[in-house]
Amino acid sequence: MKNLKGKLAKWLQNAKRSEIRELLKLLGDPSIISLGGGFPDPNFFPVKEIQEITNEILANKPELALQYCTTEGMEELRNQLVSMCQRQGMQISKENVIVTSGGQAGLDLLGKMFIDVGDTIICELPSYLGAIQAFKMFGANLIGIKMDKDGMIVSELRSKLEDLRTENRLPKFIYLVPDFQNPSGVTMSLERREEIISLSREFGEISIVEDSPYREISFGIEMPPTMFSLAPDIVINLGTLSKIVLPGFRIGWMIAGEDIIKAAVMVKQSTDLCTSPFTQLITAKFIEKYLPFHLSKLREVYQEKRDCIMDEMILQMPKGVSWNNPDGGLFTFVYLPDGMDAAEVLKKAIKNGVAFVPGSAFHCDGSGKNTMRINFSFSSQKNLGLAIERLAKTINEF
Amino acid sequence: MKNLKGKLAKWLQNAKRSEIRELLKLLGDPSIISLGGGFPDPNFFPVKEIQEITNEILANKPELALQYCTTEGMEELRNQLVSMCQRQGMQISKENVIVTSGGQAGLDLLGKMFIDVGDTIICELPSYLGAIQAFKMFGANLIGIKMDKDGMIVSELRSKLEDLRTENRLPKFIYLVPDFQNPSGVTMSLERREEIISLSREFGEISIVEDSPYREISFGIEMPPTMFSLAPDIVINLGTLSKIVLPGFRIGWMIAGEDIIKAAVMVKQSTDLCTSPFTQLITAKFIEKYLPFHLSKLREVYQEKRDCIMDEMILQMPKGVSWNNPDGGLFTFVYLPDGMDAAEVLKKAIKNGVAFVPGSAFHCDGSGKNTMRINFSFSSQKNLGLAIERLAKTINEF
Repeated sequence: MKNLKGKLAKWLQNAKRSEIRELLKLLGDPSIISLGGGFPDPNFFPVKEIQEITNEILANKPELALQYCTTEGMEELRNQLVSMCQRQGMQISKENVIVTSGGQAGLDLLGKMFIDVGDTIICELPSYLGAIQAFKMFGANLIGIKMDKDGMIVSELRSKLEDLRTENRLPKFIYLVPDFQNPSGVTMSLERREEIISLSREFGEISIVEDSPYREISFGIEMPPTMFSLAPDIVINLGTLSKIVLPGFRIGWMIAGEDIIKAAVMVKQSTDLCTSPFTQLITAKFIEKYLPFHLSKLREVYQEKRDCIMDEMILQMPKGVSWNNPDGGLFTFVYLPDGMDAAEVLKKAIKNGVAFVPGSAFHCDGSGKNTMRINFSFSSQKNLGLAIERLAKTINEF
Repeated sequence: MKNLKGKLAKWLQNAKRSEIRELLKLLGDPSIISLGGGFPDPNFFPVKEIQEITNEILANKPELALQYCTTEGMEELRNQLVSMCQRQGMQISKENVIVTSGGQAGLDLLGKMFIDVGDTIICELPSYLGAIQAFKMFGANLIGIKMDKDGMIVSELRSKLEDLRTENRLPKFIYLVPDFQNPSGVTMSLERREEIISLSREFGEISIVEDSPYREISFGIEMPPTMFSLAPDIVINLGTLSKIVLPGFRIGWMIAGEDIIKAAVMVKQSTDLCTSPFTQLITAKFIEKYLPFHLSKLREVYQEKRDCIMDEMILQMPKGVSWNNPDGGLFTFVYLPDGMDAAEVLKKAIKNGVAFVPGSAFHCDGSGKNTMRINFSFSSQKNLGLAIERLAKTINEF
């Protein structure tokens, strides 16, 4: 199309293609081991169980599974999600649940519901790239607050909120990934959760978005409560099937107050009408029959992989390189020596047969150039070892 | 949440819940026959074929079907869509195709790609409600151009474009449903298609969005070419599986120039990452093996229903009521006598056991109060007869 760029919406005219997306393409080349992406291990997809359930649903309720369904989602699935959340200490009923087309679609809904061009959104530094991108589509002005090993640093948040209040541009919401954060692997302590909630109340009940794809992938530790269970009146909780079972069904969910769910339903109606009732019904039955057993298996497998990659890094990584040892989730975060540029390292790393995501992609202010995100869920232990060897060799070349 | 309304994005603060959505809820009450919605007939879902294909895919490629896939969609499906479009005279390759999560998600993508708050969008009067809602989410200023039996009236379009050029606010695109339009049932003539394309060129190559969910549901007539095949450089074509096979997989697609598809991929990445590879792979195989036979069956069934509803309306409808006799698709549009309000008729109609969508919902300027959209695909012939009897009785009460 002639002069397409001039015709595009303003935010898109200067947007860049996602680094993660470009990296996914590398997975096609079998000589490169990818520690990029956030892919679950396909060897542990519960294929037999899915096959059994799918046949049962197509035999018994094809007229529901293959038709349109209501925008908020199938009752069967919403009821299962209520039970799942209740086991996490969240006091909810199905009026607090809307099913979304994957976790990313929940972020998109939030953007549409809350963000006008120029609105402030606060996130962690670093934060989930997909959230940063989704909020930028709606013209958000993202402000990152630094983290330490216990999560977002509360004194920095307070000082930023005070500045923003003076400028009359307090954030529409604070976006957090409290459990095994993507990309840092950090889990927010109970104290921090409580402090951030109390700051939110102090500054006029700022909404808190708790994005929690990894919570159930914990390696034998006791988890602090969800932020939703601490403050259900101001927290919006997002979940997804992608990491705990499989991504291919595109099933996610939003848990929030009834008034917020009603607004979300209106927005979703215009966004995609409804999420597939076919994959919703399969998911509901899988959660009911198989999820607890599946999760205990998955935790074991990913914990072994985490151990493997930690052992290899201790053995292989050059001096001056440090990293986080996460208690769950899919990622660890690596800090290269100051001044080293992970984007440059990546170019060489690909030549050496290993890929990762440079950490700057996750920093809404463009900082974090010396960091990288390492995924340990997708590759086999053998490949993880080989990949760290290649990565250490590459870093050594710098 | 305290003061939720004040926290919402501006467009949402005054948005109303969709009338279609509220109507879908009535489908739960078996005593009401719904001529609302745009549901296909579930008795003709190809359940056996879907079951066979699903088992094959879960047996042979679970690691692809259940994992994330690329944002543009699975090659298997994009290749089948290329063949389908080529049979419609569209000269395309897979670089011209992106898979979307249902047809509605294609409209959402277009809104994000092109619309800044206040931008002008031109549509037909009436037009598809879901499109009007999707574009309004992004702050579009919708302008409707009247239709006659051959589609949008070109002299009115020209005069509006001249006004808009003077005001320096020419539309970002012209949104059209040229084939068996929802809601009017009208098919645009070849002459009109050519005239609108030539107007678009005259006014600086305004993009044309050709939304075409119903094209393949034709009742023995020869169709004019798609607008895309007449002007692939300025037309964006949208399609969906929902009406020709089934809605429950949430599979749609956008066909456009490569530069537009690249922009769409960036936007979709932040919207929902990817559409379900599971339902994409099933769809690809279904199109390859069964679509032509399935379509010939469906055309026959829907044509019989169209004939049935036309016969009933001639028999039952009071004088002063007129309607369109469509050559395909799922809808006919009914004109009540001037001054009669279809929204009031609906309230009584529901008490009498029949539902439809008042036509004003489809008029972006709020006009069309004396019109109603009637769906004939969902109900059985027996129920269609009964529904028209109830509807005629209700209208007679006014």
